[in-house]
Amino acid sequence: MKFELNREFIDKLRELIEQNQAKEVLGMLDGLHPADIAEVMEELNTEEAKFLYLQLDGDVASDVLIEIPENDRKRFLKVLPPEVIAHQFIEFMESDDAADIVGDLEEEKKEAVLQEIEDKEQAGDIADLLEYDEDSAGGLMAKELVVVNENWTVQTCLKEISIQAEEIDEIYYVYVVDDDNILKGILSLKKLILKPTQTKVKNLIIEDVHAVKTDTEQEEVAQIMEKYDLVALPVVDHIGRLKGRITIDDVVDVIREEAEKDYQMVSGISGDVESGDKVWHLTRARLPWLLIGLLGGILGARVLGVYEGALKENAAVALFIPLIAAMAGNVGVQSSSIVVQTIASGARDFDSFGKKLLKELSVSLITALVFATLIFSYNFFFDAAKALTMAVSISLFIVIVFASMFGTVIPLVLNRFKIDPALATGPFITTLNDILGLILYMIIANWCFSAF
Amino acid sequence: MKFELNREFIDKLRELIEQNQAKEVLGMLDGLHPADIAEVMEELNTEEAKFLYLQLDGDVASDVLIEIPENDRKRFLKVLPPEVIAHQFIEFMESDDAADIVGDLEEEKKEAVLQEIEDKEQAGDIADLLEYDEDSAGGLMAKELVVVNENWTVQTCLKEISIQAEEIDEIYYVYVVDDDNILKGILSLKKLILKPTQTKVKNLIIEDVHAVKTDTEQEEVAQIMEKYDLVALPVVDHIGRLKGRITIDDVVDVIREEAEKDYQMVSGISGDVESGDKVWHLTRARLPWLLIGLLGGILGARVLGVYEGALKENAAVALFIPLIAAMAGNVGVQSSSIVVQTIASGARDFDSFGKKLLKELSVSLITALVFATLIFSYNFFFDAAKALTMAVSISLFIVIVFASMFGTVIPLVLNRFKIDPALATGPFITTLNDILGLILYMIIANWCFSAF
Repeated sequence: MKFELNREFIDKLRELIEQNQAKEVLGMLDGLHPADIAEVMEELNTEEAKFLYLQLDGDVASDVLIEIPENDRKRFLKVLPPEVIAHQFIEFMESDDAADIVGDLEEEKKEAVLQEIEDKEQAGDIADLLEYDEDSAGGLMAKELVVVNENWTVQTCLKEISIQAEEIDEIYYVYVVDDDNILKGILSLKKLILKPTQTKVKNLIIEDVHAVKTDTEQEEVAQIMEKYDLVALPVVDHIGRLKGRITIDDVVDVIREEAEKDYQMVSGISGDVESGDKVWHLTRARLPWLLIGLLGGILGARVLGVYEGALKENAAVALFIPLIAAMAGNVGVQSSSIVVQTIASGARDFDSFGKKLLKELSVSLITALVFATLIFSYNFFFDAAKALTMAVSISLFIVIVFASMFGTVIPLVLNRFKIDPALATGPFITTLNDILGLILYMIIANWCFSAF
Repeated sequence: MKFELNREFIDKLRELIEQNQAKEVLGMLDGLHPADIAEVMEELNTEEAKFLYLQLDGDVASDVLIEIPENDRKRFLKVLPPEVIAHQFIEFMESDDAADIVGDLEEEKKEAVLQEIEDKEQAGDIADLLEYDEDSAGGLMAKELVVVNENWTVQTCLKEISIQAEEIDEIYYVYVVDDDNILKGILSLKKLILKPTQTKVKNLIIEDVHAVKTDTEQEEVAQIMEKYDLVALPVVDHIGRLKGRITIDDVVDVIREEAEKDYQMVSGISGDVESGDKVWHLTRARLPWLLIGLLGGILGARVLGVYEGALKENAAVALFIPLIAAMAGNVGVQSSSIVVQTIASGARDFDSFGKKLLKELSVSLITALVFATLIFSYNFFFDAAKALTMAVSISLFIVIVFASMFGTVIPLVLNRFKIDPALATGPFITTLNDILGLILYMIIANWCFSAF
């Protein structure tokens, strides 16, 4: 039942494509899910993929198009004329997918495609959806939904649903509105088929439904659907009129995307890359954060340069530079990651800014005490110079506390200014903490070597 | 329509609880979703939460129980006798939730609870589910599903569905089996209500359905449901008999969990913590990886100690220690994160182990060349000693290449041995690369200062 993509399949397909055996190629793809076909295409080179794609039927082709990674799709749509995009793809799609595709086109082409669409209602729906911010509920929703009036009977509903359902992939809920299109509630299909046909919809309605506004952010949409285990969520405007619905599959993509974005940030990768990508693509994703790391390293060298004389005198101080820097970096990343993860999970937190800092201060003081004691014991046990022992322990203590506070404050501040707090988790915070740690270590070491 | 938890709500609730006003407390919770009630409880102290919980009706109480974070739930169930757990919670639950709850109990209590359940079929279902690995499809699935025989008519189906549906929260698909309970396909509810009543189910069946085996791993289940945009997925045994179904809400939890696990690993946190957690809980989650970092730092100090004389002689070498260590760490984390992310996304990759390494080698050579050139230019421009300039550039080049290779090989090897590859992304790889970087830097610097 399940298609398992393997090397032999690809090799055979390539051979057939090379021999221009269109019919056999189509035969191999027969019965495959569009997502599988898209996956197959990713394994082919551009020419082969194009040949294969051009053999597909309109409705399959449009389903496959949605499944192709965004970058490949953009490149592909660039070379196609507006009439092909409109008639061969857009007209087969639901409005949310269509809006995603059209939204990616250049301004002029966008208009040309919308002009080409023959079903003016569809063109209107797409144009409506394009008005919304891509990352808002409006940008996620589809206009296709099954909607009935609260004054109808079950019988009228079923008839009406059978007409509306033609255009929709899957019905999860039937939405109920009043005469002004204000959302009143939902009907579950299950309830509908179990009730006598003359019952009024009004009496079957589930009134307490979750709904979001068109401008609700996609993260919040995902949190609501996740929390309440919803498969579809209605979207309303500011006076409660039903505008569309968001389905769980789109939200799963949002969850995955958001998680990947945060993950990339903390691991210092810019952009969505996978092992399978091209060398240049992989390299480019890694350079920006490494450049920050390099600049931080140079700054660190400058800071240490000030103390070059002191380091010459007490070379042993240099031995613990990596330890101080690494601990500062690790502690900082931990602190900011916890803040970012808490924000991402949508967990409520009533603590004030001050209380959060106080808590982090407690955590960092305990942590600092533990590790300062450990490193003190190590140096004491291995009989290091008294000044060095003191310098390293005191520095580690202070550096851990500072790095914790920085790691907590920066994402919180970024979040308050509506900047993605995850920015604070990457090499940026590590680098900042590295340098800060070095400065503190040098000052404290200098003081210790003069004091002890 | 949406409940917004706020400080005033909690304060008022607390006051009512303190005054023992059970009725008013229940009034405040009226109409709230179980997930909201669970959230409210998290804001209360244990005594308050217990008071509130004991006021709830059985079916609400069981829904709330499922929404409470696992640790709190375990603590809570510990103090309740088996008969309360069975009659007040389990009997109101679907089999997958019930199995999760019972599975968390101690062996003796588990059996006592199963004995207490009056509906022997339900007890049997739960016992069946407990047999499966928690992280497998069998562990995720519920036994409740709507199933019809392929030889029935639409009319019989609808009647049968109306009986079966009583026990089920939401129907997404109707599963069709033959006389041996072998899964033949699905019916969509939409199709069913649109067809004449005498049509045979056989003729409406969608045969090409995705299904997983009971022992399929949960990551794979998530990947399949995500890829094919499914809201429910049937689970079959090894000869194709229908055993249960997995719904999208459980899979969303799996996706979130897996992403969080990887995120925590790369940011050096052990365990699932949020800003709102207790100080000790937060501290404990941070100590293990920091300890590794400390040991790494001490090892680093030992390595540098070998070269203490050389460092005294050429103190300028020490200035670039943080730069080398930081770059090694960052590059290593990037490499392993890309591998981990690729594995997590379930992307297919036909490249052999050797080809993957070759690709990483290309990426690292370009990266190394870029940064070695940059740091060479910097030192050249600022007129550093020739030996130092050479030492830092050559070291950075070699360290970047090594760190890349390590960062790629380790997660791949871990994955091959079925160990979570994310283990390679945390402070472990950073620390390893730090030390390796230091050793290389010291050797190369020594050589440079004797050669130039």
